Amino acid sequence: MRMAELSRRTGVPVPTIKYYLREGLLLPGERTSPNQAIYDESHVRRLRMIRALAEVGGLSIAKVRDVLDAVDSPDEPFEVLGAVQRSIEPPVGATDGEHWAQARERVAKLLLERGWRAKIGSPPAQTLIAALASLYDVGREDLTDLLERYAPMAEKIAETDVERVTRGQGIEDTIEGVVIGTVIGETMFGALRRLAHQHVTAMTLGVVEEYDFGPGTAGGSGSHLE
Amino acid sequence: MRMAELSRRTGVPVPTIKYYLREGLLLPGERTSPNQAIYDESHVRRLRMIRALAEVGGLSIAKVRDVLDAVDSPDEPFEVLGAVQRSIEPPVGATDGEHWAQARERVAKLLLERGWRAKIGSPPAQTLIAALASLYDVGREDLTDLLERYAPMAEKIAETDVERVTRGQGIEDTIEGVVIGTVIGETMFGALRRLAHQHVTAMTLGVVEEYDFGPGTAGGSGSHLE
Repeated sequence: MRMAELSRRTGVPVPTIKYYLREGLLLPGERTSPNQAIYDESHVRRLRMIRALAEVGGLSIAKVRDVLDAVDSPDEPFEVLGAVQRSIEPPVGATDGEHWAQARERVAKLLLERGWRAKIGSPPAQTLIAALASLYDVGREDLTDLLERYAPMAEKIAETDVERVTRGQGIEDTIEGVVIGTVIGETMFGALRRLAHQHVTAMTLGVVEEYDFGPGTAGGSGSHLE
Repeated sequence: MRMAELSRRTGVPVPTIKYYLREGLLLPGERTSPNQAIYDESHVRRLRMIRALAEVGGLSIAKVRDVLDAVDSPDEPFEVLGAVQRSIEPPVGATDGEHWAQARERVAKLLLERGWRAKIGSPPAQTLIAALASLYDVGREDLTDLLERYAPMAEKIAETDVERVTRGQGIEDTIEGVVIGTVIGETMFGALRRLAHQHVTAMTLGVVEEYDFGPGTAGGSGSHLE
């Protein structure tokens, strides 16, 4: 297909496709003349992955490149997962604050007790330690038991994720699933948790909150679209 | 206490405290002379909240101000929750993509079926719709059932959060708990999910992954600190 068709199929504008080509995120098409090239399904698939990472995951082009490098030279899906995690992990600030050591011990203890084969030095563990340390920092030690409460729930979700992503269709689909599932799944889950907060808070506090959707909208009338 | 003591108590450097004072995030202390003021526990508490929002939540100063405004004039905790959610929610791009209407219907249906008192027009619902639409966009409709799988787990976590935050100590603690729990709890849960991904993926794929922590570290030897 030509670039116009590739754009239509993926929803990515032509100038953006050209930018990705220049940046080397997308392999060149097959040249059919000095200024024409044709593209195939591999380009469609790659563009969709770039779009998921950049637009939904909010990753920078440099980070998208890191993830794609891992996808392109996979020793195993585990390596891809590591690369995705390193890419999407927010930067952790100082690791020597007043409560860092205390928080680190508690996270190490959790990993040990749950038997998680996860590294205390890995990016998500560092994020977790920083978040826990900040609960101590802000004087809300009473909330730190959320760590142990969350852990089994996080494990159950991870089981769902991995089962969902590894079922079926070969290594390429699995790797794409790991990348897309980690990034988009994270966004989805966070949004669902915040939606559930609205619900549970409203129920707990007895707030009468007006629904702004109903059977009509759910059925597709679209009358409440904005 | 003087500003130096306030800095020591909260871990926030003096120049940063002065910046927050100039920006109006922190109320002035009580003047004791033209260039001296004293601060009390309310300043300690407020600084800790600013630190949690800015450093852990990664919120801009403008967004921290939005949250604090809601905290300072709370009609009810529900309003504070809404303000926090609006502040931490990532911006949603176009809402008219090919699969937006389809994704919106599915989210509306979910809210209805679960009886969630949550608004389809609220920031997290919009984020959820965008993430779901992007799964359709990238051709991975097979992963969209994560929506229905995640929902009951998200509800359970929200129940834990709300129970944890509303137990006890009066409205001020509750509101602080909502703010801090939403922001830091989100970070903690996301990190735990990614750690659990490492574990479950290693187990599923049979990867032999070397632990980089052990009883010695968990017991506090600190020998593996970096």
